[in-house]
Amino acid sequence: MTNKIKNRSRIKVIPLGGLGEIGKNLTVFEYEDEIVIIDCGLAFPDEELLGIDLIIPDIAYLQKNKDKVKGFFITHGHEDHIGALPYILKQLNVPVYGTKLTLGLIESKLEEHKILNDCSLNLIKAGDIVDIGNNFKVEFIRTNHSIADSVSIALHTPAGIIVHTGDFKIDFTPIDGETIDLNRYAQLGKKGVLLLMADSTNATRKGYTMSERTVGEALENLFLKADGRIIVATFASNIHRIQQIANASVKHNRKIALSGRSMEKICKVAVDLGYLTIPDGVLIELNDIKKYANDRITIITTGSQGEPMSALTRIALGTHKSIQIEKGDMVIISATPIPGNQKPVSNVINDLTKKGANVVYKAIEDIHVSGHACEEEIKLVHTLLKPKFFMPVHGEYRHLKRHGEIAESIGMDKSNIFLLEIGDVLEVSRKKAQKAGKVIAGRILIDGSGVGDVGNVVLRDRKNLGEDGIITVVVVIDKESKTIISGPDIVTRGFVYVRDSEKLIKEIRQIATESVEKCLDNNVMQWSEIKNNIRREIDGFIYRKMKRKPTILPVITEI
Amino acid sequence: MTNKIKNRSRIKVIPLGGLGEIGKNLTVFEYEDEIVIIDCGLAFPDEELLGIDLIIPDIAYLQKNKDKVKGFFITHGHEDHIGALPYILKQLNVPVYGTKLTLGLIESKLEEHKILNDCSLNLIKAGDIVDIGNNFKVEFIRTNHSIADSVSIALHTPAGIIVHTGDFKIDFTPIDGETIDLNRYAQLGKKGVLLLMADSTNATRKGYTMSERTVGEALENLFLKADGRIIVATFASNIHRIQQIANASVKHNRKIALSGRSMEKICKVAVDLGYLTIPDGVLIELNDIKKYANDRITIITTGSQGEPMSALTRIALGTHKSIQIEKGDMVIISATPIPGNQKPVSNVINDLTKKGANVVYKAIEDIHVSGHACEEEIKLVHTLLKPKFFMPVHGEYRHLKRHGEIAESIGMDKSNIFLLEIGDVLEVSRKKAQKAGKVIAGRILIDGSGVGDVGNVVLRDRKNLGEDGIITVVVVIDKESKTIISGPDIVTRGFVYVRDSEKLIKEIRQIATESVEKCLDNNVMQWSEIKNNIRREIDGFIYRKMKRKPTILPVITEI
Repeated sequence: MTNKIKNRSRIKVIPLGGLGEIGKNLTVFEYEDEIVIIDCGLAFPDEELLGIDLIIPDIAYLQKNKDKVKGFFITHGHEDHIGALPYILKQLNVPVYGTKLTLGLIESKLEEHKILNDCSLNLIKAGDIVDIGNNFKVEFIRTNHSIADSVSIALHTPAGIIVHTGDFKIDFTPIDGETIDLNRYAQLGKKGVLLLMADSTNATRKGYTMSERTVGEALENLFLKADGRIIVATFASNIHRIQQIANASVKHNRKIALSGRSMEKICKVAVDLGYLTIPDGVLIELNDIKKYANDRITIITTGSQGEPMSALTRIALGTHKSIQIEKGDMVIISATPIPGNQKPVSNVINDLTKKGANVVYKAIEDIHVSGHACEEEIKLVHTLLKPKFFMPVHGEYRHLKRHGEIAESIGMDKSNIFLLEIGDVLEVSRKKAQKAGKVIAGRILIDGSGVGDVGNVVLRDRKNLGEDGIITVVVVIDKESKTIISGPDIVTRGFVYVRDSEKLIKEIRQIATESVEKCLDNNVMQWSEIKNNIRREIDGFIYRKMKRKPTILPVITEI
Repeated sequence: MTNKIKNRSRIKVIPLGGLGEIGKNLTVFEYEDEIVIIDCGLAFPDEELLGIDLIIPDIAYLQKNKDKVKGFFITHGHEDHIGALPYILKQLNVPVYGTKLTLGLIESKLEEHKILNDCSLNLIKAGDIVDIGNNFKVEFIRTNHSIADSVSIALHTPAGIIVHTGDFKIDFTPIDGETIDLNRYAQLGKKGVLLLMADSTNATRKGYTMSERTVGEALENLFLKADGRIIVATFASNIHRIQQIANASVKHNRKIALSGRSMEKICKVAVDLGYLTIPDGVLIELNDIKKYANDRITIITTGSQGEPMSALTRIALGTHKSIQIEKGDMVIISATPIPGNQKPVSNVINDLTKKGANVVYKAIEDIHVSGHACEEEIKLVHTLLKPKFFMPVHGEYRHLKRHGEIAESIGMDKSNIFLLEIGDVLEVSRKKAQKAGKVIAGRILIDGSGVGDVGNVVLRDRKNLGEDGIITVVVVIDKESKTIISGPDIVTRGFVYVRDSEKLIKEIRQIATESVEKCLDNNVMQWSEIKNNIRREIDGFIYRKMKRKPTILPVITEI
């Protein structure tokens, strides 16, 4: 490859998720007839997506270019980076690369979906460079985040070097001693970075994110004060946090029990793989906690977000099988509520407090730190890498925008900063970067075991049903005699409590009867028209009477 | 009345709202055959109360004691203190007492409900003492809060003095110059306060709440920087905030337009009554903003909570009739999101930013302060009033609990602190306070124009309908021949998009048919049993197939 050709060579960067939103991170890098992908995450639905369990990225573009795809390269084991793999590998079975803990977590997912044996998982470690196809060398660089074994990725391509930070923070005193490899960043910066893609989650926060180790100090202070059981709720995937809770427990001679399915599952993976070190005999079964004095017990549990079915919520409501709150219990919520979860978390705090627990949460003590870099850390990374072009990733629009402003504030030319939306194609060559069209991108909704079968019509109907309920009107009509043989029967759900509303139901039946009879008298025999009439008349009556808009569902049977 | 009798006299304090919750504040004070009430507020529903518009307190106890009730005494004009009046005055028409602005806001509510002429509104001012019945003297004491003209109330009763702070903060530099009357608190403290009831909203926050005036300084800095339109979103009732925005606008030679129905309504009341001073010619119609250069315009708008139909949300979505975002617009969100509103507020910020606005919000600049006292202010009030007994009010349980701990920390005996729930009766005499039973208390849900006709069954149904939709199964059966004459017809809403799911619907029809035929063959002619069969079989089929649980609604017509 001569220099001349190299100069003309272009790489396409196509984010299919994670821009303008939090979650479902997935970015496509396409060079000629080869594609590599960084991350494959899911997102959790907003409340308006009624009944939806998960959201994954729409990969129509990858399906169309199936033969080009060389593999998924995963930065770390959080759901928003690995959670879509079980769904997407079913459609696009290519090799997956990740560090030991990341693969451990992916494995247990694929196992649940019963596709582990069909998939190719490839272990890498920070520092490794993987040769893929003819055009990509994928380099893994140690980074820090709220889950162990996280990496950034440097893609070495004919067009130049692209660095994707993944989720990151800078922690000079990480729990596992594995500090982000800033030296490698500096080397790459010297070599010349064509494009930087960097985490924007905390770009609107000034200063620095504190080290995970500071949480350990706060926990230690609480352990010193506690004279009953200590129950700590945190994210199951935050292995370093769990390690610190374990360390404090060992120091204060407490046994540790785990509560919550994902806590048990992830801790098992982490212990098996050596990411979580708990001395023999310290970890006990949850059912055995009664065998020890209260001040000899630590329980580590899920539910730090007030999730309705989680262990901590059940403890708070008094419906947990093995844990009942006792006076003197200290409950530490070592997390901050994700936007949207403040109310359920408040409810859990109130219920625990009512039951006599001393509840400690972030607003009261510094028992949580973020896993994402704030403004000054972001500036450091930009300064070391000195990229020619920059695309902020991982964040809502305001985060991306602010991240762009930070880059500008330390000297980057505004025309070299690209605020993209998912599906946008950024074409980058040594000399130039530009938006070059758009591919299909969006969200696929997962409801139960259904993937993508719930669309806007269904969601709109669910919203209407949920707000005001439904009135079903059933009429049997004799087509010959043009008379009502039976009905109208009125059946409602979610509208009014029927036993208290006999008169109202009677009025609705009367209106339905008149509406049908009027149609029959006028020789209207199109069902659709009769139905529309019923709908319109009942709708108007109810809105006038009670200012509500239930769904009206007329069913006409003719015999 | 001799001293001996006085010593035996007891007053009952019965909170019917505002404890263990935020909102619907209403407290009953009963002495022999007389009752006075402080505040009459509403609460806004959580998301799980699908379709519910408002919540008001259950006043069954007051209806039972109708003849005793002497009046409502209102501390300030926020919805959670006045919002239930239009509903409750319809059932219990007694005099209402409040300050000028408070009555102004109540008036406009009663007018909307068309009951203003039937109600007795009585104007009082801070410092007034109103004689009610034989046992109550009601004293109004100036206080500070995020709405002008707020008062605390001291009830002088035969049992002793009860002080209810209402919502409060301590502001030494309030915008209207009316500082909380700490001197009167000190005098009452000297005289002897029997019971203190005090605002707990910010009890878990350390330190002091900043003065409203600091917001003016932050706004001034932003006005200096802005070279386009300034659009400020804030609570319509925060007259002092609006005054400060107006002051900055006048200083920087900007005209002011108001956007949002409640903003227009409340500002009109406040201007008419002299609480908001805007020089002639500064206030312009929203439709006239185009007549001025952008840097001569300030728009004050509702929607600081991201409410779906509010003016700011419509501006963000580009659907506002008179305001389209232009590059260079500065949008200031002068409020913090109430728990539960973080996501909609984020969406509004993102949408405004995408349209080119420079959005300034609390996380970035100090453009909002709370209206409630933090820990150190709370301590000051306790120290001045030196109450014998104490009941924390206005807050979730964790706030009440913390407020109790603060009282203890400055020397109050724990046994004199009462953490109550709504409906609890606290009986207080000069010597003693104790819980003495419970009265009916709870919430009445308002949906459209219906008051209290939506109960738990209806809400549960709405939740199910909203999550997974409904499948209606209609069958017509001939009772004589025991055969299906027509159907089963399957109609669904909010379940799957029918056009894509013909096969599924066919399967459901098949299952319903078999289920009915099996019943008919076995001579089962109880409709309820046939219905249960249909429900069970379809339910099982769908759960196995798609892990969903739609509502199944069988309707059987027999002819």
